[in-house]
Amino acid sequence: MTVELISVGTELLLGNIVNTNAAFLAEQCAALGLSCYYQTVVGDNEERLLDTIKTAMGRADVLILSGGLGPTPDDLTKETAAKAFGMKLVEDAHSKELIRSYFEMRGKEIVDSNWKQALIPEGAIVLDNANGTAPGVIMEGKDCTAVLLPGPPNELVPMFKNQVVPYLNSKTKRVIYSQTVKICGMGESMVAEKIQDLIDAQENPTIATYAKTGEVHVRITASAEDEKKARKLVKPMRSELKERFKDYIYTTDEDTTLEKSCVDLLVANGLTISTMESCTGGLIAGRLINVPGVSDVFKAGYVTYSNKAKRKVLGVKQTTLKKYGAVSTQVAKEMAEGVSLLTKADVTISVTGIAGPDGGSEEKPVGLVYIGCRVKNKTRVEEYRFSGNRAKIRENAVVAALTLLRKCVLEYYSQVTFKQ
Amino acid sequence: MTVELISVGTELLLGNIVNTNAAFLAEQCAALGLSCYYQTVVGDNEERLLDTIKTAMGRADVLILSGGLGPTPDDLTKETAAKAFGMKLVEDAHSKELIRSYFEMRGKEIVDSNWKQALIPEGAIVLDNANGTAPGVIMEGKDCTAVLLPGPPNELVPMFKNQVVPYLNSKTKRVIYSQTVKICGMGESMVAEKIQDLIDAQENPTIATYAKTGEVHVRITASAEDEKKARKLVKPMRSELKERFKDYIYTTDEDTTLEKSCVDLLVANGLTISTMESCTGGLIAGRLINVPGVSDVFKAGYVTYSNKAKRKVLGVKQTTLKKYGAVSTQVAKEMAEGVSLLTKADVTISVTGIAGPDGGSEEKPVGLVYIGCRVKNKTRVEEYRFSGNRAKIRENAVVAALTLLRKCVLEYYSQVTFKQ
Repeated sequence: MTVELISVGTELLLGNIVNTNAAFLAEQCAALGLSCYYQTVVGDNEERLLDTIKTAMGRADVLILSGGLGPTPDDLTKETAAKAFGMKLVEDAHSKELIRSYFEMRGKEIVDSNWKQALIPEGAIVLDNANGTAPGVIMEGKDCTAVLLPGPPNELVPMFKNQVVPYLNSKTKRVIYSQTVKICGMGESMVAEKIQDLIDAQENPTIATYAKTGEVHVRITASAEDEKKARKLVKPMRSELKERFKDYIYTTDEDTTLEKSCVDLLVANGLTISTMESCTGGLIAGRLINVPGVSDVFKAGYVTYSNKAKRKVLGVKQTTLKKYGAVSTQVAKEMAEGVSLLTKADVTISVTGIAGPDGGSEEKPVGLVYIGCRVKNKTRVEEYRFSGNRAKIRENAVVAALTLLRKCVLEYYSQVTFKQ
Repeated sequence: MTVELISVGTELLLGNIVNTNAAFLAEQCAALGLSCYYQTVVGDNEERLLDTIKTAMGRADVLILSGGLGPTPDDLTKETAAKAFGMKLVEDAHSKELIRSYFEMRGKEIVDSNWKQALIPEGAIVLDNANGTAPGVIMEGKDCTAVLLPGPPNELVPMFKNQVVPYLNSKTKRVIYSQTVKICGMGESMVAEKIQDLIDAQENPTIATYAKTGEVHVRITASAEDEKKARKLVKPMRSELKERFKDYIYTTDEDTTLEKSCVDLLVANGLTISTMESCTGGLIAGRLINVPGVSDVFKAGYVTYSNKAKRKVLGVKQTTLKKYGAVSTQVAKEMAEGVSLLTKADVTISVTGIAGPDGGSEEKPVGLVYIGCRVKNKTRVEEYRFSGNRAKIRENAVVAALTLLRKCVLEYYSQVTFKQ
């Protein structure tokens, strides 16, 4: 089955926003085993939108349109798609009621234009919008089906996951099931090398690697008559990957991020954490505090960008700073130990490095970063050399710190040793 | 003049990466006064790519293609575009030399496939690549011009800015010049309202608003025979906007971010800063430390997510926490004062709030945030109510904190008072 994505919105054509919806939908469709050959962005213009829909109808089984379902006269997606499919718009009592209660609950007044959102192509399937007023729509034509989704990602994402995925699965005679194995602490080429034989021999399930900053995700996708059988096909491949990557895998759960896996690990072992950041300047603490409920384990974070702050706040010795320089194994070690003493946290993380663009030298180039991790009374410091601009170097350092934190806690508690 | 963007790459169709190039190019083209009606993403497939190029040739004056200029057999953009334009590929001695020196300087071995990148459509303009091995290409056809750019953003962005913008300006008989006025501390609808008369009456220059998180950018674009005349057209509109928005404008410089404007303001007034974050968890310090050279002004940052840390690290009183709750004006005030006492910074910022998803109540709902700012001996606390998920609330709080910081420093030093 082939799918084509059409993103509607002048704000995309003007570069006002980045098309993250297309990336999300494309990844989801790939996971469902759908082939996507084209993505198009078109503005809120009836003629060009109609033209785009008709072209796509001629070459794909399913069209996914996003955006242009709002209440203003600019929003034309539903009207134009209905025209292309030869359907007329009728008022949907259920959607009208949902819109009414959406406004009532928020104590907002409904203006007349809002009722436009309750118009639905006759015979179409309505997708309720739990996070906004625009319902989604599925229109089934003779040779082509169109799925219309609202543009705001916080409305589009849950609507797609909860309502469109089951629909698409019901339409394909076979069910697609996929699972992602998330790996940290190993580069993409190393991951690919370790599973090259599996990639070469893949049939059903298939496997594919996706590189993220400091992480590699391996997606296993199986197709079968029902989900149970598809899951059964995925299982041995997942076991094989677990066998090959062991503790480099931080999760096989779709919604678990690296920072969440770190917080979970701390909670599971009853550990508290404090951070001490120089070049990352608070971003590691910021990532950890992404995780709801982190307050149970997070003691305190410090940002000591200057040498003076490193000495004053954390007691890093003047002699150490002078002898080895602020960016050194020794300072990273004293930072991790200083924050441990200061906050009595079980685990501490310290970072010192040169994020650039200035401050580099031949001996200590831009991108050189030392990360320290202390678990109870054991401190470990690792040296990294990242490339890219200031933002990229800092982003890489944050992921490396979370990865090191995971490693050190695992090694402390289970005598696991990480070797590549 | 109309332009159409074609992004080439299977990784985009699979949703492996987000198409930030399209957003960048679209914004640049809009600033150049070019009209863009379609953006297309297509994979590394000759037939479909050829089809896409031909369709675009039929409806646009300029095509900008990105991606698919690499050395592997998968990379087909140059070959396919040359076919569509009826040009043959010939070896370009200059590009060959640049590729040779690129590898030599990095001590890397050249493999045969690299020479494919020195093939250029006969008669095309070559765009040197300062950051990679794939040269860009401009092919001038009878009714349509194609610009081919490498996919990696760090290669595409400087090549476009330095070589393609001057080319496009030389092709239009008129020069387009634009300038952005960046506003913080005022919502988009309020900004739009204040300039509705200017928007309604706009001719040359035109003005358009762009909403960013917590900021609004107003772009003024003028077209004239030469840049000098275009600048002259922009100037009175910029003065008018300055008159209307006064200190809400933090910069009119394209490359200055909100955090840079804050750091510049601190440097200009000889002030140091320390931060104390609860729900934003280090992200404000992280944003400030984005700015190279921030070490001159940044004293220390603290992340005290728990009540205990607020007391222990900063001396927030137990009685205050008990009486008013951690998320309160009083605690934000004590935090700003505590970090001031602790670090002796001239300016301090404190944040405490409920980022969700849990922890909200009827009285103190998710999204309630207090931000304190102390300049010398004067502390100010403001209350905010943000909506969205945890990440969105935190992102909004970071921008609000930087905006408040700017406000307080300006008010302290110049008796400016912000009123809407």
